[in-house]
Formats: sequence, C-alpha cells, structure tokens
Amino acid sequence: MLKSTSNLLRPLGLTRPTVVIDEPRARANIRRMAAKARTSNVVFRPHFKTHQCAEIGQWFADEGISEITVSSLEMAQYFAGHGWTDITLAFLLNPVALPQIRDLARDLEARGGRLGVTIDSAAAARTLAACDSFPARVWIKIDTGYGRTGVGWNEPEELAAVVHGLGPHHLPAGLLTHTGNTYAARAPQRVIGLHEDAVARLHHARADLTAAGAGPDLLLSLGDTPSCSLVSRFRGIDEIRPGNFVFNDLMQWEIGSCESSDLAAAVACPVVGLYPQRRQIVIHGGAVHLSKESLLRDDGVRVFGLLGTGSPGKPLATGAILRQAPVTSLSQEHGIVTLAADNYESMTAGLEIGDVVLVWPIHSCLTCDLHQEFLNLDGRRIER
Amino acid sequence: MLKSTSNLLRPLGLTRPTVVIDEPRARANIRRMAAKARTSNVVFRPHFKTHQCAEIGQWFADEGISEITVSSLEMAQYFAGHGWTDITLAFLLNPVALPQIRDLARDLEARGGRLGVTIDSAAAARTLAACDSFPARVWIKIDTGYGRTGVGWNEPEELAAVVHGLGPHHLPAGLLTHTGNTYAARAPQRVIGLHEDAVARLHHARADLTAAGAGPDLLLSLGDTPSCSLVSRFRGIDEIRPGNFVFNDLMQWEIGSCESSDLAAAVACPVVGLYPQRRQIVIHGGAVHLSKESLLRDDGVRVFGLLGTGSPGKPLATGAILRQAPVTSLSQEHGIVTLAADNYESMTAGLEIGDVVLVWPIHSCLTCDLHQEFLNLDGRRIER
Repeated sequence: MLKSTSNLLRPLGLTRPTVVIDEPRARANIRRMAAKARTSNVVFRPHFKTHQCAEIGQWFADEGISEITVSSLEMAQYFAGHGWTDITLAFLLNPVALPQIRDLARDLEARGGRLGVTIDSAAAARTLAACDSFPARVWIKIDTGYGRTGVGWNEPEELAAVVHGLGPHHLPAGLLTHTGNTYAARAPQRVIGLHEDAVARLHHARADLTAAGAGPDLLLSLGDTPSCSLVSRFRGIDEIRPGNFVFNDLMQWEIGSCESSDLAAAVACPVVGLYPQRRQIVIHGGAVHLSKESLLRDDGVRVFGLLGTGSPGKPLATGAILRQAPVTSLSQEHGIVTLAADNYESMTAGLEIGDVVLVWPIHSCLTCDLHQEFLNLDGRRIER
Repeated sequence: MLKSTSNLLRPLGLTRPTVVIDEPRARANIRRMAAKARTSNVVFRPHFKTHQCAEIGQWFADEGISEITVSSLEMAQYFAGHGWTDITLAFLLNPVALPQIRDLARDLEARGGRLGVTIDSAAAARTLAACDSFPARVWIKIDTGYGRTGVGWNEPEELAAVVHGLGPHHLPAGLLTHTGNTYAARAPQRVIGLHEDAVARLHHARADLTAAGAGPDLLLSLGDTPSCSLVSRFRGIDEIRPGNFVFNDLMQWEIGSCESSDLAAAVACPVVGLYPQRRQIVIHGGAVHLSKESLLRDDGVRVFGLLGTGSPGKPLATGAILRQAPVTSLSQEHGIVTLAADNYESMTAGLEIGDVVLVWPIHSCLTCDLHQEFLNLDGRRIER
C-alpha cells in the first residue's frame, strides 16, 4: 500500500523531506471560505501565517481578497513587499518596534492601504497616543475565553482604561479576538457553541467600550479555523480571520472542522530504515521537518503525524489518511512510524529504503514554517 | 528581577525573538570535551547539527578539531563548502541521493579528506557494493538499546548479512551507535550505566562482524551528549560524536549532565502582555522560535522553557535558571509564562511591554535550527 504511493511520488525525485502542496485543494478551501464570507456579508481577512508565501498569497488574490492578517512585523513587511497594502498585524504591539511599525504604516497609507495594529493594555494605548502621526487602525484585543492575550470581555474598567489611554484623538477601529479555545473542543457542536459565546462576549465588550467613549461604530473581528470552517453563516461580526483552513491538517480533522479530502499540505519523507521485528519504519522526517506538535491518542500514544496514500496521477488528492500508520516518535532528523502487528507486512509490501511516504502533519502552520520552499504536485517549486 | 535582566539586554536593541549565544561558555564546553577526548585517546568528531553554523564551527577548529559529524547531506555540503574535509554523515544512507553523496565523497577525497556514510541493512550494503569507485568510509550503524535505527547488537545473522552485502571489496570502517537512550535516564549513574552497556554491546557486535569477515580493525564510534559529558574517561571506544554539549539546555540540566553555568544558548523574547490576575506574562516567543519540545514536570505541567536572569555586563553568564518561571504554553508566535502566586509581583516589578526576557530552551538543537542567525553577547550577528 505504501509502495504504490511511493511509486506515484517517484516523478518528483525527492531525496529529502519536502512539503507537497495540493494547489487545487488549497484553492478550493480558499474559494469556499471566501464564498461563505460574501454570503454572510463579512470581510474576509485571511491570516497568512500558515503559508507565509507570496505565491500562495496570489491564490487568495485570485478570489478577490485584498485584506490580510499577519502575526509579526517581518511577515507584514514581507507581504507589503509583495503588493499587499491592507494588513492587520494581529499580534500585540511591541513599543520597541514602533519606529519600524510606523514606517510600514506610512508606506501602506502612501499606497492607498492601511496597517492595523493590536493592543490590549492602557500602557500600549498611551504609547500610541504619544506617537504623532501614526496612520494605523487600532484594534483592541479582547479575551473572549481563550486566555492568551486580550482585555477580558467582562472587565469594563480595563476596557475603559484602554480607551482613555488612547485619548480622544485616537478612536479604535474595533475589537479583535482570537477564539483559539475552539482548538480544545473536539466536537463541531462545541466549537459552534464557543463561537456563539465569543460573539456575544464581543458585543458585551463593545457596549462597555462605547460607553467609555470609544465611539459607536466599533467593528468586530474574529478568527480561528475551527469555528470559521464549521459555522454555516456568520452573524453579529464584521470580519473573519482564519488562516489554517487553507491547508488544514490532522488537528482540524480531529476537531471535525474539515474532511480528509480538505487536507492540502503533506510532507513527503524518504524511508531510510525498515524494522519488521518491531513493525517500524524509520523516515527522514524529524522535528525540524514536521515540528514536535502532537495529538494524544485515546490509548495514550502521542502521535506526530499519520501516513497517507495517494491516488493515481494525483498523489495527494483523494488519498486516505492511515490511522493505523502513526508517526510515534521524532528526533531532530528521524521519524519513527509504528504499524500495527497485523498491518506491517501488507502495508510495507515491496517498500524499500529510498522510497517516499506521505506524512500528514498535525499542525500545518508549524510544519510549513520549517520549510524554505514547497513543491507543487507537478513538481514545481513554490519559494517562500 | 526580570526587569534587571531586561535592562542588561537593552543594549542589544532586540525587537523580536533572538537566539543569544554566550561564546565564552560555548568555547569552554568545546575545550573541556576536546581535552577529555585527548586524555582518553579517542577521536573527537563533534556533531555539528546543534549549531549548523560555519562561524561556530571555527570555534571547534580553534581547539584543533578537524573531523566532524553531520546528520544530513545538506549539512555535509554546507560544511564542506566552509573548509571541512573529514565528515561523517551519521544518518542512514538514502540510495536515491547516492549520486550527490558520491560527488561529495569525491570532492572531499580530492581535498585530502574523506566522507563517512552509515548503513544498517544488507540492502543498503548491496547498493554501495554495486557502486563503482565510491571513496567513502562505511560505518555500520548498531542499535545498542536506543531502538531507533541500527542493526541489533545481538543479531549476528543480520550483522553478517550487512558484511556479505558489502562484499570483499568494501570493508567497513567500523561500528557507529547513537546512545540516545541516555536522554530518558534522568540520573548520572544511570546514564553512565547505559554508556557502559553500549560499549560492551559494540564489542559484542564487533566480534560477530569480524567473524563474518569484516576485518579485524573495526573502529567503534559512539555519540550522545549525556554520556560523553558524564563519563570521566572514555574506555573501549575509538571515537566520540556528541553535539548538544556545545550549548547544552534544560534537558541536559535535567539529566544532570551539565551545570546551569554550562548553558550557552538562550532566546531573548520581548514581553508583549502582562496579566497580573492570572499571574502570566505573554512573550513574543512561540513554537516557531523555541520549538514545541517540552519536559513534563512532576506535577504534570508541561514546560517549554524556563526564564533566566543575567548578571551585570554578561547577561547570560552566571545567570540563574528560574524554575519558578516556566513557559507553560506555546502557540505559533506566543509563549505564556506562568508565575507562582507569591512570585508574580516581585518577579515582574517594573517590567513593561517591550522589555526582554531570557528563555532557556528545552532542546537547543531544535531551537537553534529555527533561527537564521544568532547574536553574540556583544550584539554581533552570527550568520548561519
């Protein structure tokens, strides 16, 4: 079974771990999310941290997207250099980087665009207020339950302090939340429930901010792939910012927010060792190629990826995800795949060292970040 | 307490997560291991996967080291391009990459050096034997208990099959093992015991290989930082290949194979949020800067790094490791530091967003691999 996938991948001539992107699947994922945003009348501002790649950015532009999200100043600068002019930096403002952020904001404004920045404290608000001529939209980050960053949605005094810190000359653009708590919800209905809670909490916080003088037209921006994938129509918000959905991964599949056929990024890994006695395959594909992100299986086994199968002509498309072929250990360059006792022989029949297996990653954002380039299914390089 | 370290780091002007290397400590780590190898009369062939950096390679050359280990063809090519000519590729041979490996082997030979390659199967041996004019030393990888790759030390038939696969014209150079099982031993005496077992098992396997016709002069090469750091004098082996020891990290400290003052690579991370109510600091320093490597604390908390303190003039040197300030959660760009209830106020006194904290990584090899450059304590960039 693994041998036939290796044969399908052979034309790519791979000698080392390589991210393979299924462009038609990724484009379909983009198109579906864009259509849902249009139907719901919300701005679709995808998070580009997943791919961090100008060429893949173009696939979004092809669907009419012109507003994007990034999570670092360097990413904002990279995409600004590739023609994007409406960029939200959805990572808390670092005052030490203010000169570079201001330069970027001015550059985008001069090109008819705008930079968005994110704050969650009165201290950051005062820093911005003290800054003359800073042409950026200011988003107030709200913690709607994830517990990472943001002013608590139910902390009216903290919210008011941020508004007062900004002062009367710097009205915020809106409230921004990352509902990352949906990742811990391993059932679609629970994800949707957390999303609805978050929307209600944003409304609650908006009322408090407006009461504190932030103006009546505050926008609401929300982002996370599980809820954006599962909610059938967005209500009560103005903007969505999912990122991971473009490739999806085993975590999304586990959550139930995508089908196996929506996974669009895998890592092709050469087989370097076969160990029938312990029913293991060792692959060139370690922590520096997959990341050490893992999922804990019900039986207590930690899984770092699952092998997959291809289908003729399109190794990634319509291939199955093999639950029975997990990557159970990763060191720097090695991965160990442990097969079930009754599966080893049939799955590895004909398999030789130098053959290539497909590994579906747990978290595609972290996996893709580890690679300088991707490969298209036709073997063409996609530079980052 | 954290504020004073931030003040020490201020001259570096950091606005994003940056690996800071304490060169004097790293050079001392190299010097100590080199001296022990000399005293023990073994070849010191350090593993360069930890730093993957030509300039840091020079610190080894300064101690008289001319033989090195790498874990990928790309790493071998990189260091060959920086003047190294005696390189062991301690990663199982991928037959598909044989043309490139042969080119490299010929290049090194032409420069008076040599490439070492590693195999652990009769199939790989036959592939090499079929290859005319391949000027490489062949190492047979032995599994002495780690269970990742290698022919089992107590599998005489498998060992003989590798020798017969190589044929009479390709005598192996020796036996090579990675005693990675020492990482799971969290006590020095246990590490030393595993090392002694491994040496004895190498001798056992060598006898079987010699009996199978591999020649009488097989060398024994062993590598892993815990045992190479803890064994006071090497006996019964010909070569050591540790890598991690140059920087060490929290895992080595946990094992007991280094002192806190031997840690030479930390990540300086900007503070982006302060949350007294939940006693947490949020830093710009996530999975893409630290790696998701973790240690499980006795109380069940998973730790992704520990904050540290600096000392005047030398922020890294002699600074303490703060067990009470663990990084307890990582997402792509964010890290969450959770402080104990009675520590938050004193530790964060004066701390502001934009300040910089030092994070000691769990596994320095994986952390360093994520960065394109390091910073010296004097603020000088070390390119990779």
